[in-house]
Amino acid sequence: MKIIIVGLGSFGGSLAVYLTNAGHEIIGIDLDMNRVEFYKDKITHTINLDVTDQFTVSGLPIKSTDLVIMAIGENQGASVLGTANFKTLGAKKIIGRAISSVHETILVALGIETIIRPEKESARKWYKKLTTKYLEESFELNREYSIVELRLPEKYIGKTVGEIDFRNNYNLVALTTIQESMVSSPLGGATIHKTVQGVVQHNTILTQDDIIVVYGKNDDIQRFLDK
Amino acid sequence: MKIIIVGLGSFGGSLAVYLTNAGHEIIGIDLDMNRVEFYKDKITHTINLDVTDQFTVSGLPIKSTDLVIMAIGENQGASVLGTANFKTLGAKKIIGRAISSVHETILVALGIETIIRPEKESARKWYKKLTTKYLEESFELNREYSIVELRLPEKYIGKTVGEIDFRNNYNLVALTTIQESMVSSPLGGATIHKTVQGVVQHNTILTQDDIIVVYGKNDDIQRFLDK
Repeated sequence: MKIIIVGLGSFGGSLAVYLTNAGHEIIGIDLDMNRVEFYKDKITHTINLDVTDQFTVSGLPIKSTDLVIMAIGENQGASVLGTANFKTLGAKKIIGRAISSVHETILVALGIETIIRPEKESARKWYKKLTTKYLEESFELNREYSIVELRLPEKYIGKTVGEIDFRNNYNLVALTTIQESMVSSPLGGATIHKTVQGVVQHNTILTQDDIIVVYGKNDDIQRFLDK
Repeated sequence: MKIIIVGLGSFGGSLAVYLTNAGHEIIGIDLDMNRVEFYKDKITHTINLDVTDQFTVSGLPIKSTDLVIMAIGENQGASVLGTANFKTLGAKKIIGRAISSVHETILVALGIETIIRPEKESARKWYKKLTTKYLEESFELNREYSIVELRLPEKYIGKTVGEIDFRNNYNLVALTTIQESMVSSPLGGATIHKTVQGVVQHNTILTQDDIIVVYGKNDDIQRFLDK
């Protein structure tokens, strides 16, 4: 694919590098010359350009581009003007990034169907993690259903997956268990490494160190933890 | 819990509001007075303060605080200095946010075990989504195993979940299906609403509009899509 990525910050820059490495033709654009220089050898093409200026944008190969990703993360005005310029000049598909609700509403009004909110998604995930005891990670399918990584409440330790009978007792599906180990980092300190144990078996015995991955309704997950 | 959140941008601000609404006592700190004003009535306490200055930080109730979240998203220097100040002054637990690999390495060296990278996580998710045909969403348990939302390759349409036999044929676990509908937005335009269909049944017939949620090894997921 030929993809234009506008904004080479932490999000846009990482995405542009991943996609370049996967063999896609990426045009990375930023207003900041330092970022353009930094990514020069890591992204197919990099350009120092102001997307709020329609005349400048009209010089880009928009018709032959499959997708435009507006990854600007700070300047909402530039994001909105840039999106309008690409839209006006006939971009086939645009993915937007919003950093506030107003920003999101404007992008939707401009006809952008796919809008990313990396910071808000992460904030919601961390909110759940910090406020739900035993919860390590969560992935919301929608507001009602989630897949969660849980540490085990004491009463379940030493039992087998079959004994707990997630399906019949809690209306949940147990997927797998995860074991953690510490891996040291180049400047000292350590990070956590996760090992996934394939698909959970009925006779798997759950230990104190296991993290179990479970799918179901948020209410049922809470019931499993509370009961 | 009593939590200090430093940096009230898109990530820190959202998180502080979620946690305040859930009944936690939050002290939200930002160098930008406009942000402090904006969140004044939405967060338990807001303070306009420079966390790179140790003397200033020492005035905060660090000993009685359960958790410090360094949510600064732009200024890596301020993030590192602020983290060092809170650490030196005896913060019980600090969660960091990194916006580059160097930044992350320094935070790990400072002894921060939990580090968030919202933009990079999102970039990786979108990279997978854009480069994997049929893939709608993905949640990585580690580098080897994922839970994915997939559109169905044509050959599976009209079959039941039991006929496809995810477990035996592909070593995958099918969790549920999702149906999408469009919901209109206040300024015009529309966004997508997702309805999750509980736990998948053996006799569920898969249609063209279904998104199926599947768990397994990345290689096995690819095999299911390619075969």
